[in-house]
Amino acid sequence: ETFKIAVIPGDGIGPEVIDEGIKVLNKAAELDGSFSFDYTYFPWGCEFYNEHGKMMDDDGMETLKQFDAIYLGAVGYPGVPDHISLRELLIRIRKEFDQYVNLRPIKLLKGAPQTLKKDHTIDMLVVRENSEGEYSGSGERLFQGKPEEVVLQTGVFSRKGTERIIRYAFEEAKKTGKSVTSISKGNALNYSMVFWDEVFEEVSRDYPEVDTYSYLVDAASMFFVLDPGRFEVVVTSNLFGDIVTDIGAGIAGGLGLAAGANINPTREYPSMFEPVHGSAPDIAGKKIANPLAAIWSASQMLDFFGQEQWGARVLTAMEDVLQDGSTLTPDMNGNASTDQVGQAVTDALDKK
Amino acid sequence: ETFKIAVIPGDGIGPEVIDEGIKVLNKAAELDGSFSFDYTYFPWGCEFYNEHGKMMDDDGMETLKQFDAIYLGAVGYPGVPDHISLRELLIRIRKEFDQYVNLRPIKLLKGAPQTLKKDHTIDMLVVRENSEGEYSGSGERLFQGKPEEVVLQTGVFSRKGTERIIRYAFEEAKKTGKSVTSISKGNALNYSMVFWDEVFEEVSRDYPEVDTYSYLVDAASMFFVLDPGRFEVVVTSNLFGDIVTDIGAGIAGGLGLAAGANINPTREYPSMFEPVHGSAPDIAGKKIANPLAAIWSASQMLDFFGQEQWGARVLTAMEDVLQDGSTLTPDMNGNASTDQVGQAVTDALDKK
Ligand SMILES: CC(C)[C@H](C(=O)O)[C@@H](O)C(=O)O
Ligand SMILES: CC(C)[C@H](C(=O)O)[C@@H](O)C(=O)O
Repeated sequence: ETFKIAVIPGDGIGPEVIDEGIKVLNKAAELDGSFSFDYTYFPWGCEFYNEHGKMMDDDGMETLKQFDAIYLGAVGYPGVPDHISLRELLIRIRKEFDQYVNLRPIKLLKGAPQTLKKDHTIDMLVVRENSEGEYSGSGERLFQGKPEEVVLQTGVFSRKGTERIIRYAFEEAKKTGKSVTSISKGNALNYSMVFWDEVFEEVSRDYPEVDTYSYLVDAASMFFVLDPGRFEVVVTSNLFGDIVTDIGAGIAGGLGLAAGANINPTREYPSMFEPVHGSAPDIAGKKIANPLAAIWSASQMLDFFGQEQWGARVLTAMEDVLQDGSTLTPDMNGNASTDQVGQAVTDALDKK
Repeated sequence: ETFKIAVIPGDGIGPEVIDEGIKVLNKAAELDGSFSFDYTYFPWGCEFYNEHGKMMDDDGMETLKQFDAIYLGAVGYPGVPDHISLRELLIRIRKEFDQYVNLRPIKLLKGAPQTLKKDHTIDMLVVRENSEGEYSGSGERLFQGKPEEVVLQTGVFSRKGTERIIRYAFEEAKKTGKSVTSISKGNALNYSMVFWDEVFEEVSRDYPEVDTYSYLVDAASMFFVLDPGRFEVVVTSNLFGDIVTDIGAGIAGGLGLAAGANINPTREYPSMFEPVHGSAPDIAGKKIANPLAAIWSASQMLDFFGQEQWGARVLTAMEDVLQDGSTLTPDMNGNASTDQVGQAVTDALDKK
């Protein structure tokens, strides 16, 4: 079986870290023997924009549809405004391909740098709504520049969108025997979050075997640092998911280890795998970017293709490298280069 | 000079912790000799609601106007829905008295329990917008119960409201020689937060002597746990302020130490001082609630009345008790009662 991957290395450190993820994917395929990858590279991103006045080719979305998955490095560069670089590439793909599930594992790997003083078992999966809600882009600016100026930003929560993300989380929890925690804010957001809580309650009735919890986003944010062990599968809205997964990155080793997958569960369109970190222009080209988040995202891709044993083995290989400690990038107090870390993970995978 | 205080002990542990704050206020007044407090108690809250069908007397707001400040314990109790207990008491006072500044110090006191592994200097002041924005309560629910159901929640950001909170933060920073950090999310909330960033930029031009920083809320949330020392005065919206101050509570000793003040800077109406924690019905009446957050809020009240030297001395007294460690409530691994802790702080204040 051959998986067709569209590779968009993107901007800044994107290309450097993506190279290492591909090394690891190839090693997994080689060791297994029953599957392989076929990569096609697309030079889209901010440099492309500076040359062509657009973030991707005109038929870019059409072209991407033919692939089984997209592997993306990072998007964004000084000089190109966010609303272009993000809205015309990253957010566009998430939306048009209806990648409504943003899966972000928050797991403290063995050997990862510890932020919290107490030893906590940190092993949760955040299921973030990825297609609507606070990110709907709907709003209004009235009386611009006048004293009475007022700006409205409207979050749009559909029943369909809210139900399907919550249901996804319950399916995930059921499969793995875990609990589901909903994060919302019904005591202040009196329409959207009251609705979210209702739908969560409704959907939970279909899963009597799954334990459920419900937290206000402020309390959840506090418990992410005081007692993260209480969370297993977490389901939340687009904005809250954005925030809590970055707290998650903070407690589980830093952005250098934060991975994400944008999933279209119907598989009508390709899903996209990308590290959470950005393009980090300040360190681009210096070969010191940490490739572990990109490698973790590659491991999520293996899971997505039904190769869960390899997804898990990649994580174990990463843990070997972290625990060994001699081959890490400067952000983790090491002095290895990006490709040395990628090679170390590949070697560790080989040895198992 | 006598300050007239309306005391609303409220629900759950509210009355227990308020008693201790008042002990400390009285000791400060006694030691100073130039000011005193005159307290009037109001039995408003959920018990009052169960008896009278309302959270406060009909002329409650009118009555409160005659006071210099409100000292509130906690509101909320099982059986009374949040939208009643909060919207008809706590949030009502914040709004109707135009307490548009929510001041929350995030400071790791000497001797406070440490959440983060690294030693960071944590000493920031979060200036949270407290009157509008995401909490405006504006929205719509369409096609209820139908498959096409959609729920809208609209944040309302006025120029007046945005400008005055940002200006407040700059004034605070200027006074204390600190930097100001704005927390927003312009790359996703394309109306409200783009506007916020613009106003921040505009106001900052009036304060060339103040250093400024701007963070996305996700990045800020991560740096609250990875490197909180970079933040001094922080200004942010209602919802983001709610979230980041709870992360702040998490890194600076827990909810037992999280204090807040709801300020009306024009002094047209009274300001309100309240610990951030809730009514904690599970431990109410057991005399084990931690009074330190309520005492810290009392110290903010002393600052507000121009008695900054006493505000600071109360914090030092709290640090003495924390560092001594023998008189702390169970949430801080001690076995003292609420009033023993209050007494210990009062005694420490006496000894200085
Ligand atoms: C770049 C930005 C729009 C994006 C988001 O907010 O979703 C990023 O923070 C993320 O978490 O993937
Ligand atoms: C009780 C709730 C409405 C309130 C808020 O969200 O403002 C609380 O969390 C707070 O931070 O004071």
